[in-house]
Amino acid sequence: MERSYAAELTPGEDVVVKGWVHEVRDLGGIAFVILRDTSGKVQIKLDDSVDEELVERGTSLSRESVVAVEGTVEEEERAPTGIEILPTGLDVLNEAEPELPLDPSGKVDAELPTRLDNRTLDLRKDEVKAIFEIRGEVQDALRKKFRELNATEINTPKIVATATEGGTDLFPISYFEREAFMNQSPQLFKQMMVGSGLERVFEIGPIFRAEEHNTPRHLNEATSIDFESAFVDDDEAMEFCQDVTVSAYERVYEDCQEQLDAIGVDLEVPETPFEYLTYDEAIELANSEGIEHQLEWGDDLTTKAETALGDAIGEHYFVTDWPADAKPFYVMKDDETARAYDMMHPRMELMSGGQREHRVDRLRKEIEAQGLEPEEFEYYLRGFRYGMPPHAGWGLGLERLLATMLDIENVREVVLFPRDRQRLAP
Amino acid sequence: MERSYAAELTPGEDVVVKGWVHEVRDLGGIAFVILRDTSGKVQIKLDDSVDEELVERGTSLSRESVVAVEGTVEEEERAPTGIEILPTGLDVLNEAEPELPLDPSGKVDAELPTRLDNRTLDLRKDEVKAIFEIRGEVQDALRKKFRELNATEINTPKIVATATEGGTDLFPISYFEREAFMNQSPQLFKQMMVGSGLERVFEIGPIFRAEEHNTPRHLNEATSIDFESAFVDDDEAMEFCQDVTVSAYERVYEDCQEQLDAIGVDLEVPETPFEYLTYDEAIELANSEGIEHQLEWGDDLTTKAETALGDAIGEHYFVTDWPADAKPFYVMKDDETARAYDMMHPRMELMSGGQREHRVDRLRKEIEAQGLEPEEFEYYLRGFRYGMPPHAGWGLGLERLLATMLDIENVREVVLFPRDRQRLAP
Repeated sequence: MERSYAAELTPGEDVVVKGWVHEVRDLGGIAFVILRDTSGKVQIKLDDSVDEELVERGTSLSRESVVAVEGTVEEEERAPTGIEILPTGLDVLNEAEPELPLDPSGKVDAELPTRLDNRTLDLRKDEVKAIFEIRGEVQDALRKKFRELNATEINTPKIVATATEGGTDLFPISYFEREAFMNQSPQLFKQMMVGSGLERVFEIGPIFRAEEHNTPRHLNEATSIDFESAFVDDDEAMEFCQDVTVSAYERVYEDCQEQLDAIGVDLEVPETPFEYLTYDEAIELANSEGIEHQLEWGDDLTTKAETALGDAIGEHYFVTDWPADAKPFYVMKDDETARAYDMMHPRMELMSGGQREHRVDRLRKEIEAQGLEPEEFEYYLRGFRYGMPPHAGWGLGLERLLATMLDIENVREVVLFPRDRQRLAP
Repeated sequence: MERSYAAELTPGEDVVVKGWVHEVRDLGGIAFVILRDTSGKVQIKLDDSVDEELVERGTSLSRESVVAVEGTVEEEERAPTGIEILPTGLDVLNEAEPELPLDPSGKVDAELPTRLDNRTLDLRKDEVKAIFEIRGEVQDALRKKFRELNATEINTPKIVATATEGGTDLFPISYFEREAFMNQSPQLFKQMMVGSGLERVFEIGPIFRAEEHNTPRHLNEATSIDFESAFVDDDEAMEFCQDVTVSAYERVYEDCQEQLDAIGVDLEVPETPFEYLTYDEAIELANSEGIEHQLEWGDDLTTKAETALGDAIGEHYFVTDWPADAKPFYVMKDDETARAYDMMHPRMELMSGGQREHRVDRLRKEIEAQGLEPEEFEYYLRGFRYGMPPHAGWGLGLERLLATMLDIENVREVVLFPRDRQRLAP
């Protein structure tokens, strides 16, 4: 018989349901097994109308064992879902050890490290599963929006010969006889592609940063949402970022209310257009909000400044026209100012982007100015020598987008198997 | 004025088009600039009705320079697209160096290494761009089908503490003070997730294999299409693989005829159901087809055997019931036979899958039997101790799927920036 799901049962049907033993309630004379599958839960009634041996097997089940139950669906007002199954068969497909390292019913809280060590069990909790169902939906919504914007999905290499930005935050790899690195960002590759016939590209993929920071905002392996387009300027690129962000919120608002309820979030779709501030305005406003450590021109925005700005402006705003020295070589500069823009949230920076330098001579000079060797970037510069169009783009952090959207403090909670200095397994 | 695209112009309009100088034809007295953008090409007419200085600038343009042209669209029977632009303005946005390392008009062939060194220019050719437009469409079609099958998209870590299969084909990473590896396969992680409340999952992401093979079928960084589901058996999992594969063909057949024409492929959507052969039947049939090196029970299928089988059976067939010794520890075994299945194509193996071992004691024994330490896999086995359902799944190679679909010999051609023993850049 084909398997039925707990949430899709109709009274009168003969069914087979499969799932986990969420709970066994033995009231003496009558007992209930609560079976849980991916769709929800259903009560299995074990009373004196049921075969004695089956009742015996049902009441002695260890929690989280995997079972298949055959029986008839009946209406039952007192059951949590208004129905129950009167079983005619019960197979134990895999028995769980009796002592669970964490409680999937959620009645006993577990610390994050215990949860991460036991992700299989942890994701049996509705509120944790919900995060990853939303994560899947968000990726689908983002790709749908990118495709509407006529961007082509690309896959760029994760093993590279040189650092994207010449930084030191790199994981070295032994690549046969040579040294290579895990890529920090698809930046240089997506730029090479806007000079191709594709013109406009996106990628959602892993990035790797050997940052020693161990904060609730940092991951050593993260997922980056990258966009880059020929023939657009910084203003258009920012508008695309706003639209892509809003499309993710809209999808979750429209299709994931059940998941939002499980997490306990009252989601609001951000209003558009997002606010824009120049860097100069941002430090002035942050200082005027009375932050403890007053900022000077050239400083990066501190977490406290980001929070103060968020309180003053609201969620999601752009900060533009950053000091040139703060930005990498591929961002176009105008004397002391870079045509860079970040999308901020009171809790953290979400996106970093810029109008790019498409003129090869200037680009070479910028590489040199940052103490890097243009020769090492010849594979990249080559694309700029034969007709590179003006272009702009950005990289948005998927985990930061999700953590701010779902009001989750630690970005590790929105990653199935996070990587940080201490954590390499599972 | 907003930018218009070459393929979407209407006679009578005043437009701005932006793109690359595909060709300059100076016939004396009259000249044409062929402008190419992502949508197609359009002819710009430079005759005596056009400002002299503009004609001068237009005729002296180097090929592949980036320009913006303002003008009026006019009907012109003799133009390749039936229209042309009579320009009133022409801005050079970025001048290309006069000597091109390869010819984007495709008139002069280039060897693959030259093409890969110059991917920006290479992807200006219609037939190369078409491959990557199809690659994007195929990924979208696959994800759509997975979502129809109620699978949740997951992202598993690419930095891992241990080898998936205990093999030696691993790239080691310096991960802070420790050694780690780039992941060969999401296998162990996707299995942990079918034991969670998600039950059915998929991932399309990079995998890394330090194989020394340097063949047209091997890549050291590839894209794997992974699927895994609780409560399904090998037969259902194979059917899903067939359906997912066909959905990719259907999408390309329906939406990418222009790209197929550019590549020169006459695509046929494979007929279903695909054929099934046991391993025993496969070696018998291959031997009876008179392959030079006759196979014995236990041998892997050679490339010649795959070709012989393909000739006999046709494209896309499954080989099931492999010798147990040939398959990794996580595949369920039945004495000498593994419940493993591969999806084959006359040119290469496309997919490898299996019914998995969900019983933790047996799994531990299988790990030991392969000379591995169960302790190193505790993070994985832990998920099996507390209720792991029966499950099956598979991994399908995106590049192999594309190379066989588009009749492209070398899988490197379907990767933007391939990685092999020799190639690390761009």
